[in-house]
Amino acid sequence: MEEVPFLNGKTRLYGIVGDPIEQVRSPEMVTCEMHKRQLNAVLLPIHVPSAEFEAAMPHILTIQNLDGLIFTIPFKGRAMALTQHIGPQAQAVGAINALARRKDGSWAGEIFDGLGCVEGFRRRGLGLKGQRVMLIGLGGAGSAICAAIAAEQPLSMRIFDLDTARCDRMAGTIKKISPETAVVIGAPSVEDVDVLFNASPVGMLTDPRLPIHATHFDKDLIVFDAIVKPEQTPLLALAESCGCRVVRGREMMRGQISKIVDYFIEQTSV
Amino acid sequence: MEEVPFLNGKTRLYGIVGDPIEQVRSPEMVTCEMHKRQLNAVLLPIHVPSAEFEAAMPHILTIQNLDGLIFTIPFKGRAMALTQHIGPQAQAVGAINALARRKDGSWAGEIFDGLGCVEGFRRRGLGLKGQRVMLIGLGGAGSAICAAIAAEQPLSMRIFDLDTARCDRMAGTIKKISPETAVVIGAPSVEDVDVLFNASPVGMLTDPRLPIHATHFDKDLIVFDAIVKPEQTPLLALAESCGCRVVRGREMMRGQISKIVDYFIEQTSV
Repeated sequence: MEEVPFLNGKTRLYGIVGDPIEQVRSPEMVTCEMHKRQLNAVLLPIHVPSAEFEAAMPHILTIQNLDGLIFTIPFKGRAMALTQHIGPQAQAVGAINALARRKDGSWAGEIFDGLGCVEGFRRRGLGLKGQRVMLIGLGGAGSAICAAIAAEQPLSMRIFDLDTARCDRMAGTIKKISPETAVVIGAPSVEDVDVLFNASPVGMLTDPRLPIHATHFDKDLIVFDAIVKPEQTPLLALAESCGCRVVRGREMMRGQISKIVDYFIEQTSV
Repeated sequence: MEEVPFLNGKTRLYGIVGDPIEQVRSPEMVTCEMHKRQLNAVLLPIHVPSAEFEAAMPHILTIQNLDGLIFTIPFKGRAMALTQHIGPQAQAVGAINALARRKDGSWAGEIFDGLGCVEGFRRRGLGLKGQRVMLIGLGGAGSAICAAIAAEQPLSMRIFDLDTARCDRMAGTIKKISPETAVVIGAPSVEDVDVLFNASPVGMLTDPRLPIHATHFDKDLIVFDAIVKPEQTPLLALAESCGCRVVRGREMMRGQISKIVDYFIEQTSV
């Protein structure tokens, strides 16, 4: 009888939970990563209506062959309530994007947006320890990137967001994670900066703007943009035209996928 | 970025719900059938613990991209409570094995074990209308096969099960479905019988027994065995040695898969 090779009764299930769900890319990418690692597992799109989330999730977690979930909009903060073991990044950010079943049936949660960004740098041989960093944007992904950079113990971090309350909160978070790092809240600038991070939506899709007032960068500046679409943002285009090294949103995404699959495997054996 | 071709954010989800789940074959077979029909859909193993079933299922059904479920042991009877539209076969048998989401969000249920068996006959060019039938075994699959045969309006049905209450109940069911069909409850026999159905577990795996006392069959007898493992049961081996046509458990399974996918597609558009 004809069969597909990637599903059977022993397949372990993972999912990405969001509302809406059709736009997510994790199912094809995370499943591919799992198959490369010889796991009999798939990651599915799971569309839980926002209004049902709190009531439905505890029951969905009773599915015995469900081993892990990724959370996307609008659930990253609300998913915190599902975990009994909160990782340090999630603790700092107040949100998780990965939930993993442990051997004893309890659930561990962590957020990997920022760790994926740092992993993207690591894969390019770029360390952040001792560097002087400018970070623009402290929203969902931005605050996670902020916490992950802080954990690398940079020399200094200048942070900016239009929401000043976010700036104050993340300045405190950096100080907690890395007390030696000098923290400044201030408008985007590359003066005395080694690495520029954009985690704001400026430059997304057809937005032609730069997230910083600049017409030129020093070629030693390293420039990162969290935006995935387009791959070449106005910021990265300017940076490349100045001879700067750039790290792209896709590299962060790839780093994140790898880190999340590591986490799923690791927690299963705890 | 590397991706798998069979999953993305738009993939529609189906599942088979059971406890235990690892032994099921529907995920690889039904998904294959769905892909042949160009559907962006997968059928997953879903292991819901028996004790959690009633509490968990209504919440699992809130997943918006979940369009259908198959139920296996021990849930076929209990799944009836999840449906707002019960098909005629399910009505007769008191169980469903397929649940499908309609456009308005309500759920329709039907049982396809028996309809799959009749479909297996149809694909071989074998009709049951006007035939004289002997059916051995009126358990889960047997009672569904009984109801589906009755719906084909055979001339007569002789039915047997060790549980006499089941015999009485199914005799009544046959009469309701096909008032013209003559019904007899009695020990397995092929006297004045055109088609012999075994839906008992006798002959399963390494069981060497026949479900009927016989050393020879007339070559005009058609013999069906619902057993899937082994493919060649002692009953089918005897039948073939006598020159009889045989219909196998796998043909019923294939017929059932096709009928269930038809049903999922059909209900989605209701």
